[in-house]
Amino acid sequence: MDISAVMNTIGKQARAAARELAVASSEAKAGALNAAADAIWEKREAILAANAKDLDYGSEKGLSPAMMDRLMLDETRIQGIVDGVRAVAAQPDPVGEVIEAWTQPTGLHIQRVRTPIGVIGVIYESRPNVTADAGALCLKSGNAVILRGGSESFHSATAIHACLMEGLKAHGLPEHAIQLVPTRDRAAVTAMLQAVEYIDVIIPRGGKGLVGLVQKEARVPVFAHLEGICHVYVDGAADLEKARRVLLNAKTRRTGICGSAECLLVDRAFYDKHGDILVRDLIDAGVEVRGDAAIAKTRGTVAAKADDYGHEFLDMIIAAKVVDGVDEAIAHIRNYGSNHTDAILTEDDAVANRFFHQLDSAILMRNASTQFADGGEFGMGAEIGIATGKLHARGPVGAVQLTSFKYLVTGDGTIRS
Amino acid sequence: MDISAVMNTIGKQARAAARELAVASSEAKAGALNAAADAIWEKREAILAANAKDLDYGSEKGLSPAMMDRLMLDETRIQGIVDGVRAVAAQPDPVGEVIEAWTQPTGLHIQRVRTPIGVIGVIYESRPNVTADAGALCLKSGNAVILRGGSESFHSATAIHACLMEGLKAHGLPEHAIQLVPTRDRAAVTAMLQAVEYIDVIIPRGGKGLVGLVQKEARVPVFAHLEGICHVYVDGAADLEKARRVLLNAKTRRTGICGSAECLLVDRAFYDKHGDILVRDLIDAGVEVRGDAAIAKTRGTVAAKADDYGHEFLDMIIAAKVVDGVDEAIAHIRNYGSNHTDAILTEDDAVANRFFHQLDSAILMRNASTQFADGGEFGMGAEIGIATGKLHARGPVGAVQLTSFKYLVTGDGTIRS
Repeated sequence: MDISAVMNTIGKQARAAARELAVASSEAKAGALNAAADAIWEKREAILAANAKDLDYGSEKGLSPAMMDRLMLDETRIQGIVDGVRAVAAQPDPVGEVIEAWTQPTGLHIQRVRTPIGVIGVIYESRPNVTADAGALCLKSGNAVILRGGSESFHSATAIHACLMEGLKAHGLPEHAIQLVPTRDRAAVTAMLQAVEYIDVIIPRGGKGLVGLVQKEARVPVFAHLEGICHVYVDGAADLEKARRVLLNAKTRRTGICGSAECLLVDRAFYDKHGDILVRDLIDAGVEVRGDAAIAKTRGTVAAKADDYGHEFLDMIIAAKVVDGVDEAIAHIRNYGSNHTDAILTEDDAVANRFFHQLDSAILMRNASTQFADGGEFGMGAEIGIATGKLHARGPVGAVQLTSFKYLVTGDGTIRS
Repeated sequence: MDISAVMNTIGKQARAAARELAVASSEAKAGALNAAADAIWEKREAILAANAKDLDYGSEKGLSPAMMDRLMLDETRIQGIVDGVRAVAAQPDPVGEVIEAWTQPTGLHIQRVRTPIGVIGVIYESRPNVTADAGALCLKSGNAVILRGGSESFHSATAIHACLMEGLKAHGLPEHAIQLVPTRDRAAVTAMLQAVEYIDVIIPRGGKGLVGLVQKEARVPVFAHLEGICHVYVDGAADLEKARRVLLNAKTRRTGICGSAECLLVDRAFYDKHGDILVRDLIDAGVEVRGDAAIAKTRGTVAAKADDYGHEFLDMIIAAKVVDGVDEAIAHIRNYGSNHTDAILTEDDAVANRFFHQLDSAILMRNASTQFADGGEFGMGAEIGIATGKLHARGPVGAVQLTSFKYLVTGDGTIRS
């Protein structure tokens, strides 16, 4: 297969589809998504059969149990995919929304109106549900999308994509609105990262390997979704019970999501007052605590190595360190964090304000679990992920964050003096 | 000079300054800008002397009269620069503004708060005032800036930059908040375009050569400010007097700005009804009209060549063409426009809506002059230019558009179920 030629064709088709989609009606887009959801449910056996092929391939490749779990579909997970697509269908259409409107002294009436971005490239790894989630969010926001799933989920993604195509067809939307790259060849990723002519923004969803490739090769703008190296800082003025509750939730509710806590920073003042109770809670919950010298005194902990700080475990493991107050916590997070989500536990407003002011993570939390880092929990609907960059999209990226805007200006023969 | 080493040092200094600036007080920033304005006025003789050196260099290089005019400073223009810096000082500080705030059913209180982007690179050409304008807007928005002016304006930019530094110093702000690249070597531009580690966004202000270089070499995200190939479409349902007034203003008020009209599209229905009056108006005003076959029948016009369409003249020249209705106008603008500003003259709401809906320029106007494409005229304050890209900033780019945001989330020991 001539990857370059294939990717050029896909790019041109996406551009043409984007022009049609930009002016597609809200009804057609929602209708197509509901029809796609119907098709996914009806074709669930074919999707599961495709997924079985991927699982075989994954076993042969020797994927880790965690990777195999991400790859695996069953009827419950397919129901989740269907519900997700329907939820996006039911959201309001962001395109055409008047974001602001005002009148100037000249008499000009100015509106800022939401528009699609154009063509979005999504590069992801093994989770087959991203095919449906990303396809649905891009369609909702009037963008054409080029999806490039991981080689492990190739058959599952292809089967789900076929259902999305049915939805598009049933409602007269361009078939190239949602395209899936039809090859496992890694060269297709490089081609996407360089396709400035055809792709307006790339959303990479994946681990270190993908992030590194993107940083090295991307010419197309990127909404970076880096790792979630989330910190929980327990201040000397924290409430003990809130701290215990929030920390356990932040680490253990689900360990595989990007909002799970990966590092505990405890103020020495808290430690002096309450001892190692937080560390013991974690150990009792089955968490491996990799601590600095002070923390490693507690039975059952492990001495932390240097690279345990700034590490995304996505597992029942946490790095831990005693710090001298909020400023050392801030310095640690600046050094080791990934600008995703970081939390402070404190009853002291001044300390909380300092944490909020001095840090620049996409999401900062006070007395709340980092596991709330989620578009749905923010009331923003379904999301494609949490953006850790600073341009355009930041934090939860849902349909609204996948839009741009234009100014519509109306006069009455108005001229500039 | 080792350009790579110099640019690395500048980049590191900018990052350090950005961290300080992000938490600088509104008072310090405004104070520094007012002090800089004072210094520019006090040092005006030194600035004019520096400008004289640049003008000598420009003559030697054989710059065009238009280029020499852009380069030239006099006391009036320096007063304009001073007023511009003071106006930015007087604007509200965007940093820290609560853009949105809401409470979720979980009890979480969420705020979306404006933050600086970080480090901005501005690459521009001969206008010395950009040094002050861009420096002021970046400082206002809490960003460190690396300025790279054109080689022609090197001495003027250096003299103005020295005044900005005085302002920073007088108010205790980091001296590296506003840095000017201290070399005319073109390699510095390439280094900036690739400095992903040190620069968060590049704003290129210049002609085709710069735009081409940026498109070819940029690894850092770019707020593109392409040419303003602005179209005026006069529909069959246009009011004759409004059309005459707006068209003349759009073309002739100032020809050298990006919002000046470069192409007239006249609906055949208008032409049949009113004849060539618009073309005669333009000729009477001293405009060279380069028309298609229909328009070139008018005495005094010139036959258009193919490349007159889609050309930014920035002069008393306009391309002109008769089209069959709004759809042909839309197709022409999609083909030849630069997504900057395009206008329709019509009294027909349906036709105007079609123009607004089908086109995707940053600014679309109805019955108003394209010369209003300006941050001040939009009520948005001083601007660095009109962005023609679709990500983050679009249309007038002022201090607000140079910001990002973060989410501040407050709970009360709140955990996710």
